Amino acid sequence: MADRLSTLGSSELIRCLTEGFKITHASTLKGIGDAAVLRYGNAVLVVTTATLAEGVHFDLIYTPMQHLGYKAAVVALSGIYAMNAAPRQMLVSIAASAKFSVESLKLLYQGLQFACEEYGVDLAGGDTSPSVTGLYIHITAVGEADAGQTTGRHTAQKGDLICVSGDLGGAYMGVQVLEREKKMFEQNSLQPNLDNYAYVVGRQLKPHARKDIVEFFASSGVIPTAMTDVSHGLSGDLLHICTASDAGCEIHHHKIPIADETVRTAEEFYMEPLVAALNGGCDYELLFTVPVSAYEKIIGHSDISIIGYITGKEEGCFLMTGHGNKIELKSRINN
Amino acid sequence: MADRLSTLGSSELIRCLTEGFKITHASTLKGIGDAAVLRYGNAVLVVTTATLAEGVHFDLIYTPMQHLGYKAAVVALSGIYAMNAAPRQMLVSIAASAKFSVESLKLLYQGLQFACEEYGVDLAGGDTSPSVTGLYIHITAVGEADAGQTTGRHTAQKGDLICVSGDLGGAYMGVQVLEREKKMFEQNSLQPNLDNYAYVVGRQLKPHARKDIVEFFASSGVIPTAMTDVSHGLSGDLLHICTASDAGCEIHHHKIPIADETVRTAEEFYMEPLVAALNGGCDYELLFTVPVSAYEKIIGHSDISIIGYITGKEEGCFLMTGHGNKIELKSRINN
Repeated sequence: MADRLSTLGSSELIRCLTEGFKITHASTLKGIGDAAVLRYGNAVLVVTTATLAEGVHFDLIYTPMQHLGYKAAVVALSGIYAMNAAPRQMLVSIAASAKFSVESLKLLYQGLQFACEEYGVDLAGGDTSPSVTGLYIHITAVGEADAGQTTGRHTAQKGDLICVSGDLGGAYMGVQVLEREKKMFEQNSLQPNLDNYAYVVGRQLKPHARKDIVEFFASSGVIPTAMTDVSHGLSGDLLHICTASDAGCEIHHHKIPIADETVRTAEEFYMEPLVAALNGGCDYELLFTVPVSAYEKIIGHSDISIIGYITGKEEGCFLMTGHGNKIELKSRINN
Repeated sequence: MADRLSTLGSSELIRCLTEGFKITHASTLKGIGDAAVLRYGNAVLVVTTATLAEGVHFDLIYTPMQHLGYKAAVVALSGIYAMNAAPRQMLVSIAASAKFSVESLKLLYQGLQFACEEYGVDLAGGDTSPSVTGLYIHITAVGEADAGQTTGRHTAQKGDLICVSGDLGGAYMGVQVLEREKKMFEQNSLQPNLDNYAYVVGRQLKPHARKDIVEFFASSGVIPTAMTDVSHGLSGDLLHICTASDAGCEIHHHKIPIADETVRTAEEFYMEPLVAALNGGCDYELLFTVPVSAYEKIIGHSDISIIGYITGKEEGCFLMTGHGNKIELKSRINN
C-alpha cells in the first residue's frame, strides 16, 4: 500500500522526495534542509520559505487579517534569524478564493508592511493568484550573513550548552483559549472574553521574530554551534537538532522558561504547563547551542535560559524532572 | 461595497496592495513588479516566484504528476529567463492534502528533478505542509544576471521591433482537447484518444522555458529593451509591456507564429486560431522588444518572429489584419 503523507514528518518527507537531486553550482553552499545558503560574489545569502494555509495554520474566525500578515512575515523572517543571518528582502505570494475582498487583502498587506518596517525588510516581489478554496500565504525571505557564521541544525557538539530565548508554550495555550472561545460563540453566541489571556493570545496571533537575539550574538561575538526557531515545540525542535547533529541531550524541567500566564492558563485547562512548552509550537523563540566557553556571555542576557547540554548520541535525549526522574524526549510531530 | 478580487487584474491588485511599501536596502535594485532584482556584492540576482494551485492552474484528471513537477519548474524558471537572467537555484514548497500519497509526490519531484537537470538548476531548499484540500506548488527561483542586462517590462522604446519566440496558442488548444476528452470520459467512459493532438497537448502539459533564446541573446550581443514570457496570451502580455512602457504597438496578423496543429485543432473547435494565440496563455514563449539596429541578428534566428513594432502611447495598441483592418488589442485577463 502506498505510504500516506501523515506517516512521515516533513523533514523525513523532504529527504525522501529529494534524495536523487544533485548540487551543481558553486553558488549553492547548502542545499535541501533548513534553508538555502548561497554565495554570490562575496555575499553569503540565506533563502527561506514559509507557507501558511487557511484551516491548517490559521483560522480566520479569530485571526484578524492584519495580525495574519504580520505573523506570516514573522514566520518567514524567523527562519532567517535562525540561520544567524539578517533578513533583507521578502517576496509574498497570495492565493485567495473569491470570498476575499480587496479590502481584506489590504489589511493583510498592512500587517506585512508593519513587519517590514519593524524588521527592516524590503518587500521586493510577489504575486497573487486565485485559489479554489481558502487563503494561502507563501513568503520567501532573503537574508545576508557573514561568511562562515551561518548556523544549521546539524552542528551541535557534545558538551555544548542548550539555550532558548524568551519563554515557551504561550502560543499553544493561546490557541487553546481561542478555540474554546470560538466554540462558546458558535454554541451559545457568547462574545469572547480574552481579557485574562492577553499574553498567551498575543503569542499565538502576533508572535515576534528574535532579531534582538541575533543582534546580541553579533555584538557579543557569540556564534551558536547549532540553531533553530521553536516552531514545532521544544521537544520536536531539540530532537531535530540532536538527530541532525548525531547527538543526545539532557534538559532540565525547572530550567525551561514558561510565563506565569501560560502556567495559569494551562492549569485552567487541566494541562501540565511543561507539556505546552515541550509539544506546543509556534512560539518562534530561538533554540540554540553554544560552546561552554560562551557561558559567561550567555548568562548575562536576561532573556536567554540555559536549559541543558548536548550529550553523546548513545546517551539518548532526556528531560530530567525535579524528582530525579529521567523522561525520554519524544516529538509530538515528526518534523 | 467592497471590491471583489475578480474586478482587478493581478498586476493592478499587487500595485494596490503594495502602494505604501518603501525600499530601504541598497541591495534591493528593483522591488514590486515583474521580479525582484537584488545586488549583493558584484552579483545581480533575480528572484521570481510562481504558484500553481489545483483546480485553478492544473487538473489532476489529465495532468500526470511528473509533468506537473516539470511544468511548475518551467513556469518559475521562465520568469527568470524573461528577465534575461540565468536560473541557478530553486526552492520548492508543496502544500498537499491527505489524499496524496508519498509515491505521487515522488513522481512530482521526479518531474522537478528532470527540469533541474535540463535547465542546470540546483534544488536548494523548500518544505512541505498539509493543506485542507488540494495541492499547491510554490516555487521560488533565483537567477544570476550580468549587471545592467536585466530586462523589465517597462522599458520598450518607440520604434522597437516586437518579437516572439516559437509559436503561440498551442497550450490553449491543448487544454481545449484535454477538457473535451475529460468530458467524453466522464459522460461515456470513452478512453481519450490524443494521437492527433500530440503537439498541442504537449504544449499544455509539458511546456519548455526558452533558455536557448536567452543564450542566443548573450552569444549574439542582443539586449532586449523589454521582455516578458507569454503566460497570459500575446494580447495581455503585450499590453502589459505597452502599459508599463507608456507606449503603443502595432502587430500584424500574418506575422504571428501559429503551429499547423494549433490551426487544425482550432478549426476543429470552430475557433479562429488567432484568438488562441492572442488570448490563450501558458505557452511560455518569450515576447520581447529590440531596437531596429538588432534586426539583422534577430532575422537570422529561425525560431524568432518579428510581429510588429512599438508606437507612441497616443497611437494605441492595434492588430493589423490581412485586409487592411485595424483591431484594437484587448486583454482577456487584466494582468
